[in-house]
Amino acid sequence: MNIAIMGYGVVGSGVAEVLKKNNASITKRSMQDEMKVTRILDLRDFPGDENEALFTKDFKDILNDESIGIVVETMGGVNPAYDFVLDCLKAGKSVVTSNKELVAAKGYELLKVAEEKNVNFLFEASVGGGIPIIRPISQCLAANEIDEIAGILNGTTNFILTKMINDGMSFEDALKIAQELGYAERDPSADVEGKDACRKICILASLCFGNHVYPDEVYTEGITKIALADVEYAKAWGGVIKLIGRATRYGDGKISAMVSPAFIQSHSQLAGVDDVFNAILVRGDAIGDVVFYGRGAGKLPTASAVVADVIDCAKHTERRKFFGWENSIADYVVSYRDIKHPFFVRASYADEAAAKQSIADLFGEVEYLTYEGAAANELGFITAAITQREFDEKIAKADVQVGSVIRVTDY
Amino acid sequence: MNIAIMGYGVVGSGVAEVLKKNNASITKRSMQDEMKVTRILDLRDFPGDENEALFTKDFKDILNDESIGIVVETMGGVNPAYDFVLDCLKAGKSVVTSNKELVAAKGYELLKVAEEKNVNFLFEASVGGGIPIIRPISQCLAANEIDEIAGILNGTTNFILTKMINDGMSFEDALKIAQELGYAERDPSADVEGKDACRKICILASLCFGNHVYPDEVYTEGITKIALADVEYAKAWGGVIKLIGRATRYGDGKISAMVSPAFIQSHSQLAGVDDVFNAILVRGDAIGDVVFYGRGAGKLPTASAVVADVIDCAKHTERRKFFGWENSIADYVVSYRDIKHPFFVRASYADEAAAKQSIADLFGEVEYLTYEGAAANELGFITAAITQREFDEKIAKADVQVGSVIRVTDY
Repeated sequence: MNIAIMGYGVVGSGVAEVLKKNNASITKRSMQDEMKVTRILDLRDFPGDENEALFTKDFKDILNDESIGIVVETMGGVNPAYDFVLDCLKAGKSVVTSNKELVAAKGYELLKVAEEKNVNFLFEASVGGGIPIIRPISQCLAANEIDEIAGILNGTTNFILTKMINDGMSFEDALKIAQELGYAERDPSADVEGKDACRKICILASLCFGNHVYPDEVYTEGITKIALADVEYAKAWGGVIKLIGRATRYGDGKISAMVSPAFIQSHSQLAGVDDVFNAILVRGDAIGDVVFYGRGAGKLPTASAVVADVIDCAKHTERRKFFGWENSIADYVVSYRDIKHPFFVRASYADEAAAKQSIADLFGEVEYLTYEGAAANELGFITAAITQREFDEKIAKADVQVGSVIRVTDY
Repeated sequence: MNIAIMGYGVVGSGVAEVLKKNNASITKRSMQDEMKVTRILDLRDFPGDENEALFTKDFKDILNDESIGIVVETMGGVNPAYDFVLDCLKAGKSVVTSNKELVAAKGYELLKVAEEKNVNFLFEASVGGGIPIIRPISQCLAANEIDEIAGILNGTTNFILTKMINDGMSFEDALKIAQELGYAERDPSADVEGKDACRKICILASLCFGNHVYPDEVYTEGITKIALADVEYAKAWGGVIKLIGRATRYGDGKISAMVSPAFIQSHSQLAGVDDVFNAILVRGDAIGDVVFYGRGAGKLPTASAVVADVIDCAKHTERRKFFGWENSIADYVVSYRDIKHPFFVRASYADEAAAKQSIADLFGEVEYLTYEGAAANELGFITAAITQREFDEKIAKADVQVGSVIRVTDY
């Protein structure tokens, strides 16, 4: 089986490396005589690279090469990846991608074309890097109705939060270290503003609940506003702050989907997920909670997930895997304003008694949190579970100056 | 597709329940017109059961019924399950089992027959209950050479250890509670002596490393000798005691496999796995460490894993899944005496100075542990990594009376 790679960056070169390093066992598991990369598309030059002879700058060299049965797309971004992947599928080639932006934006369309052409379009590496999650959801948990999925889906923000939680470092300092270590881009906005996690929860929600969910349907909030005081209040509550992407099935055929910082209880399996690690919790009606943990990014972990998909394509050349979801539908994703959670609020006040009286009048009984070293004239409390709409109305009337609002989970 | 269930106990009745409850989505995912239980084999009577019309006491009613394509074996034990499963496979029926004893004892033989007959023999539920593990290892991690696998594989012992660790309860009291809650059998030996975990690590080692590993090749030690003092020393060290089944690939084509209590560091993903939950850590050369966490037993979790396999059988009626391992080979599993770890030792002494001098002379530098409330004339220490053989020789010469010996892990 001949394989092409489009995009020779970190993941693409890792795919070539894993295919070479573990070639004997990969070929055997693929039930092929040979598993071989014969073409690599990249606009850059890689002089002296061991795969130098395979490079091309012309996509047609892959598209028109009938010997190539599987194309790996590790370019990233929607364009031109979408056009290239579409053309490959239409030409009867199976495609494996690690590109979450592409799958979140165009997953339904590409799955449909793959189905029509009886080829595979697989994307295990697009969520959770090397962690097996797409296939376990679609196969192992197939006997379940999945009720909820929630995860730490972005390693960069989790690294920053871990530094804030364990070392008391400020967001800005932690971000600088993440950039120095190569975990964060020079422009870190896709990570720290939650966009990357948003794409991943779109893919997971589409897979778990059956209809495509697009990024612009998902309320997304990053970690740029998290202060060390919030981290301390979370500790006082008995937990930690994590950036969580989550999606929930509602009774009436609707779902919710959201990315935001959240309070997580210390004893949760998600609480101990530190540094650049990712973890994904799936709640099924028969199985209860299962959690998948591992490296959510990085060259070889992500490449190993891509290559596992390549092996699966090679094993399913005659009959494609049944796999995918339906088109998006209107009013499928409920507004975040209608989702109920408890809310954590950090706020300052001019008059403590007046502030607490107004909070009691508006929210009823709340849980006050305190920690040693808290700022003067500041309070932290957790409300009962109410909708965002109700919360926003009430907090606007409270006799306080709001510093932070963070949602509280039950896992 | 017609389905038969052999053994209507906790898991078997759960399979019937899940197939009924989620029938519409299961049928769709199976790409069948119908997924229906048409026969149930059990020697007991179930008067008034909703499936009463389906019961038979005669295995031939299943074997000779050509309309039955998939047989679920949830009887447990090797006999007569082995004969029944073998006959079903030979008759061209796919078999799904949750029976770890059967797979650990006869997995290779049954996989071989399934291959010859081009049918499926699947057993996701035999390890980790509802946790997806067999399929992720064989598919998602297929691009990796797996170097090590380690897990909390038995919920009963993990429940007992959790009570000892969190509540300071003695082993005997914790066992009694486990029995009252139905987590432990009246004869708890298969659990507390590690036999159940041993069967599971045999299955995982066979799958990860390629040759069948039998229970009698695996050094197995249970938790009956763990004292509360050991739990306290583990805390002083910065960790917890868990019953761990683990298997490691050696450089020279050999492996190790063992079940024993072990010290686990607090920050490990395995340390926070409490009560009846299970977790399995897989260490691959490309992916690093991944951990799978969830309910390792229970009616619906285990049934959901069985039904996922049933769906997979229904989807692969024409072509079986490539899946399995080779026959056992001689001298494949190295003796536990040749495996290196650090060892924790709890011991009493007559003369402290003499005891410590003898330990220094024999083991070189060791790490002494202390905790408030330790017994008089008792010490706890951790050695460097040495083989069991070396350890046994040395400890026999030390000027102490040994109370406990527990292995120390690096995860």
